[in-house]
Amino acid sequence: MRLQSYFPILTWGRSYNRQTLTSDLIAAVIVTIMLIPQSLAYALLAGLPPEVGLYASILPLLAYAVFGTSSALAVGPVAVVSLMTASAVGRIAAEGSVDYASAAIMLALLSGVMLTMMGLFRLGFVANFLSHPVISGFITASGIIIATSQIGGLFGIKTEGHTLPELVISIWTNLGAINLWTLAVGAVALALLLWIRLDLKNWLARLGIPKSVATVLVRAGPVLVVFLTMAWSVGMDLGAKGVALVGDVPQGLPMLSMPNLDLGVINQLALPALIISIVGFVESISVAQTLAAKRRERIAPNQELIGLGASNIAAALGGGYPVTGGFARSVVNFDAGAATPAAGAFTAIGIALATLLLTPFLAILPKATLAATIVIAVLTLVDFSILKRAWTYSRADFAAVAITMVGTLLLGVETGIALGVGASILVFLYRSSVPHAAIVGQVPGTEHYRNVKRHKVDTVPGVISIRVDESLYFANARYLEDLVLQQVADHPGITDIVLMCSAVNTIDMSALESLEAIAHRLHDIGIALHLSEVKGPVMDKLERTDFIAHLAGVHLSQHQAMQAIAAHRLRTTGEEGEAA
Amino acid sequence: MRLQSYFPILTWGRSYNRQTLTSDLIAAVIVTIMLIPQSLAYALLAGLPPEVGLYASILPLLAYAVFGTSSALAVGPVAVVSLMTASAVGRIAAEGSVDYASAAIMLALLSGVMLTMMGLFRLGFVANFLSHPVISGFITASGIIIATSQIGGLFGIKTEGHTLPELVISIWTNLGAINLWTLAVGAVALALLLWIRLDLKNWLARLGIPKSVATVLVRAGPVLVVFLTMAWSVGMDLGAKGVALVGDVPQGLPMLSMPNLDLGVINQLALPALIISIVGFVESISVAQTLAAKRRERIAPNQELIGLGASNIAAALGGGYPVTGGFARSVVNFDAGAATPAAGAFTAIGIALATLLLTPFLAILPKATLAATIVIAVLTLVDFSILKRAWTYSRADFAAVAITMVGTLLLGVETGIALGVGASILVFLYRSSVPHAAIVGQVPGTEHYRNVKRHKVDTVPGVISIRVDESLYFANARYLEDLVLQQVADHPGITDIVLMCSAVNTIDMSALESLEAIAHRLHDIGIALHLSEVKGPVMDKLERTDFIAHLAGVHLSQHQAMQAIAAHRLRTTGEEGEAA
Repeated sequence: MRLQSYFPILTWGRSYNRQTLTSDLIAAVIVTIMLIPQSLAYALLAGLPPEVGLYASILPLLAYAVFGTSSALAVGPVAVVSLMTASAVGRIAAEGSVDYASAAIMLALLSGVMLTMMGLFRLGFVANFLSHPVISGFITASGIIIATSQIGGLFGIKTEGHTLPELVISIWTNLGAINLWTLAVGAVALALLLWIRLDLKNWLARLGIPKSVATVLVRAGPVLVVFLTMAWSVGMDLGAKGVALVGDVPQGLPMLSMPNLDLGVINQLALPALIISIVGFVESISVAQTLAAKRRERIAPNQELIGLGASNIAAALGGGYPVTGGFARSVVNFDAGAATPAAGAFTAIGIALATLLLTPFLAILPKATLAATIVIAVLTLVDFSILKRAWTYSRADFAAVAITMVGTLLLGVETGIALGVGASILVFLYRSSVPHAAIVGQVPGTEHYRNVKRHKVDTVPGVISIRVDESLYFANARYLEDLVLQQVADHPGITDIVLMCSAVNTIDMSALESLEAIAHRLHDIGIALHLSEVKGPVMDKLERTDFIAHLAGVHLSQHQAMQAIAAHRLRTTGEEGEAA
Repeated sequence: MRLQSYFPILTWGRSYNRQTLTSDLIAAVIVTIMLIPQSLAYALLAGLPPEVGLYASILPLLAYAVFGTSSALAVGPVAVVSLMTASAVGRIAAEGSVDYASAAIMLALLSGVMLTMMGLFRLGFVANFLSHPVISGFITASGIIIATSQIGGLFGIKTEGHTLPELVISIWTNLGAINLWTLAVGAVALALLLWIRLDLKNWLARLGIPKSVATVLVRAGPVLVVFLTMAWSVGMDLGAKGVALVGDVPQGLPMLSMPNLDLGVINQLALPALIISIVGFVESISVAQTLAAKRRERIAPNQELIGLGASNIAAALGGGYPVTGGFARSVVNFDAGAATPAAGAFTAIGIALATLLLTPFLAILPKATLAATIVIAVLTLVDFSILKRAWTYSRADFAAVAITMVGTLLLGVETGIALGVGASILVFLYRSSVPHAAIVGQVPGTEHYRNVKRHKVDTVPGVISIRVDESLYFANARYLEDLVLQQVADHPGITDIVLMCSAVNTIDMSALESLEAIAHRLHDIGIALHLSEVKGPVMDKLERTDFIAHLAGVHLSQHQAMQAIAAHRLRTTGEEGEAA
């Protein structure tokens, strides 16, 4: 049983049959066709030779097929992780050098080990700290940086940098060196890819071509553009006209290799590897969960960490670079009917065949074609609507999106995402340090107590009921003291204060000391302090102290607290009456 | 009015009279006597010449008298801040050098500017993140380090380092160089000081000396020990026997001076200055508030920041080093009857006179006397009981204390406190990311709903009411999805799920997306999702979205939610009956 949870293949492999095989094979063919140009292009985006993209689409897919739990997730090189790889590796090695390639391999290895460890030690919750607004802002900003970084490739000029200002300045200063032939190839590729994406399907439908065939043709479109520009390159000898071509690449499949374990390099890459791991995991798990929900399947997040970890270790062994589950390709895989992770293994075989067959011809492919492929692919990442939605919903969420976006654009991917996570945590801490609190009264005809400012409620003279809307902990302990003492100062003649604790989920030691100080001071000036609606786990902790002995009462519900106070008053008045 | 809030002296100064003058003068004399040996000793602890301690007890007290709000707080050099100064300055300059002294002055200036800014921009809440357990652990650990660091002075050997292992190793390796005369002076001073603290008062009482006189004699005890060892030093020419003496110091009062504004030094001292500012502020404000509460006075925290800021700027101008409000001397000041901050100003005059009269004689004072003074003073800081109390109350608080203590002892003051703050924030975040949740039912005979596992409650078949005990935000958004879907999987035949939101104090965008996903999935499988007891501020935000339209209902109270579900069921059964 335990073995099966670490090797999901043992579960789904058992019920594998001819029908699932057929579904998986069809999906694999479509995804392979889609992956070829993307793999080449993303490797270029990562600053690596294009064939590395193909290498990163073979072994990782096999590893995921063994360890992964999603039947539809298609792993491989993706745009955002490629950009992050370029940014991390670019800091420690020159693009095109041997060090650069081996640092990218090391990055994949580190990321793989980190993901696997997180999975084994069930640390997947770390990814929760990457909030939706932060990840949305980050992906949109990354999309803008990626698209901008490809302008150089489309114009035939050299650009440098991984932030928007660096890229814009670099494009501006090199604008004089535009190669018009490159621009022509780029523009044609861009136009064709855009047309394929937006209109080809309708056009084929109008020609009366069946929908299933049309879908395959649309998916194959980018590959056709690759072949078309290759033909153009050969036919008009574009290389001689100054158009940058991919050039000679090593033929055949990559050798299995062990990365060079240089401690200095490991130190410099550890933090980027961690960020890449978490970003990659969050992207991947959301796709996997969305698709799983459509089929009423469940994804095991910690096993997914192991699956992605194994994929990245496999990427490192196979001479690739960091990979993760891609959104677009997984949707295609799902739509094409992938029934089990075996579809990924078949895709790997497809890519391996393509690597053997394609590499001899890659030399003549214009790089502008790959740049156009990237631009079209990342356009879907850019989504400014998150800014508007966040602004409408809450300023805090808007701040998180805006800080992440601006940080990523101006300071780079790692700084941007770190700022975003930091900002969202700080906002959360700040908010909980100055909690909302309400004076409550009884909703007439019920036993329910609500804010006197928002509802028509009944209150009892001399009794102040305060509902503090936050767990009581060190950051707001002093605030609580001020709040209660302010109420005492504002309402002379109080006899009882009830702290309604329905929203108090923990009371830590700092808050306990504050509560003790409050109880002490109220006692000195003759005011009784009550607690109501204290939750079980909080009560368990309070019972280990002598704090409760200093209270006038702890009541199950706010209503019972009010009843007890009324009864006590009646009794005291009665006694006074008797005494008189 | 506004001017008065920034210059509290304008308020209390107006009602100043002969009676307050007398009280303040008496308190000033007693505090002055107490401060003289402490100031000399703490300067030595900070790695500075002893007279700097006196300088730091003149201008800062005058500044606090103008800007401070506490009538009892006595500012000046204190043990923990002196240790932190030694640690911060020791990293960038050699002890005894001109750079060292000017770096200490710069540290006071930076700390003063930071505190003033925090006061002006009302950023005092930052100090709230230093929890009680962290500050307790930090002060105990600092006390241990300080006491250990003085062993060198008591034994007449040289020691180095600001962490426990460094100090212990340093003592061990130099143990052969013990000077027995120094040890004798140290032991006698230590024994006398201990006797004065523990037993002198009783002894004087048995001699029939009035209590008021006895109190003054006990306070003057440490000064007497200073004079006694000075006499011993001269009488037996201890300097020639290898006993370390204070040596020649510049006579007279310090000149007003402006610190050298070196950007490199500022950069290196900025972070230590911030930590010193916050630790100093937290210590000072707790003393001030404790004493103010005894007299039913109030302390304005943001004005206190300005008061301490002004004191530190004054310390820098007067050639001193960072100061803050001290616990022991403030209690003495309070007990002696200090009525206004003017008592501090009179103390400043007392110290100024002492500086003029004492400095010629300091040359013959054995340093071992000052080491003994420090050891006795810091013994009160060491309090291990916090470990036991924290352990009993909660493991999380215990972890914060233990991490702070061990971190401070082994890695130094700044790292220790940073680790403590970091750990308490991480614990809080982790806890809120895996919130407690309860399935609730109705407490019989009431409209109150509680955890089915802890209380005898009534539930309705087919309805699951879940109370999530935490604000819903990015860190627990995914957890919420899992929780609800797990309930659905565990209880087939559910028709309604009620999320009781009494403990939900915010719902951020990430959680909103999770709620939308939950609503969507439940709708797909025919389960109605209700919310109950949604608070006003949360409802305000939800109303800006279309989320509420996807719910079966939002109910004022959990009880009303259950009533609405029962009514709906009755209606549907009725309709079905009619249809049949």
